[in-house]
Amino acid sequence: MIEIKISTRTQSELVDITAQVSRAVEESDVSSGVCVVYVPHTTAAVTINEGADPAVRQDIVNELDKVIPQSDGYQHREGNAAAHIKAALTGSSVTIPVEGGRLTLGTWQTVYFCEYDGPRSRRFTVRVIAAR
Amino acid sequence: MIEIKISTRTQSELVDITAQVSRAVEESDVSSGVCVVYVPHTTAAVTINEGADPAVRQDIVNELDKVIPQSDGYQHREGNAAAHIKAALTGSSVTIPVEGGRLTLGTWQTVYFCEYDGPRSRRFTVRVIAAR
Amino acid sequence: MIEIKISTRTQSELVDITAQVSRAVEESDVSSGVCVVYVPHTTAAVTINEGADPAVRQDIVNELDKVIPQSDGYQHREGNAAAHIKAALTGSSVTIPVEGGRLTLGTWQTVYFCEYDGPRSRRFTVRVIAAR
Repeated sequence: MIEIKISTRTQSELVDITAQVSRAVEESDVSSGVCVVYVPHTTAAVTINEGADPAVRQDIVNELDKVIPQSDGYQHREGNAAAHIKAALTGSSVTIPVEGGRLTLGTWQTVYFCEYDGPRSRRFTVRVIAAR
Repeated sequence: MIEIKISTRTQSELVDITAQVSRAVEESDVSSGVCVVYVPHTTAAVTINEGADPAVRQDIVNELDKVIPQSDGYQHREGNAAAHIKAALTGSSVTIPVEGGRLTLGTWQTVYFCEYDGPRSRRFTVRVIAAR
Repeated sequence: MIEIKISTRTQSELVDITAQVSRAVEESDVSSGVCVVYVPHTTAAVTINEGADPAVRQDIVNELDKVIPQSDGYQHREGNAAAHIKAALTGSSVTIPVEGGRLTLGTWQTVYFCEYDGPRSRRFTVRVIAAR
């Protein structure tokens, strides 16, 4: 298992981590299996979406802000309840098949670390499991 | 890893792919492990939900359209920003335990390919990992 | 694979199942791998979020009720369409890396069984897959 640290720069953003995940897969020496990217935080998450047009990741951030407003009568007193809810909706892991020693991402797919309560020092882990 | 192609028929729909996934598990010859269904697209996804009443999958499609409107001031110019956001909320993979060479789906569970920007030619992959 | 039964107490609640999942990982005797928690229901789900402040899980339940209202012109006649949609948004499994024979949960992470159509008798399964 490889742990990777990142620093996020704004309150809400999607950070492209595809290169780090790909490198971890190469270093694992697993030819055929699955790769699990895991986020051990409760106000951040991980997702896969389009990387070609940066507008897409901004649209995701903006629309999630509309659906789960920053203030909405939450009971949690730390001011980041919306970030917890967005993390629950996005999910704490992604699982991607590995074939020929590489991630089988689709043409337009990018792996994104989702920051919902930044900027902060964050981390995620990459575990690769071999098929027999 | 098995790749399966499907053609979707409308802009937004949930397509039952349980039979194809089950067959891939049988062909894998894995008795005990997990099955990962992966969608390599960024405006489609995969989920598990009720298959008995077709109204359920229509309710899911309709309600997602209400929560993430087709037009909502998005910056992405291709007209499918809502589809990208719905894909992020639904997720690009599902993981189902395999036991006795079969998926351990619950009584009412069906595996659905989620089309949010169709109709299109699409594909998904099925990877089965054995437990030791 | 271990199956665990629980009884939920209200219509919508997040139930802390971290202790049961941790025990299943210990009993699996896998030192290094991943743990998959799977929910075989279509109106319940599983997620990971903060466990320290109970307000967080209540905020998640309340906000999901706002985003996906209990009544919203659904076609499904059993009165639990909203529960099906919330289950689709939350997801039927979580995957957590295992290292040193233990779940690698972050400091604030708790594993929650998500009941959206209770109270009911429910179950979930825990499968641990070893890395080679």
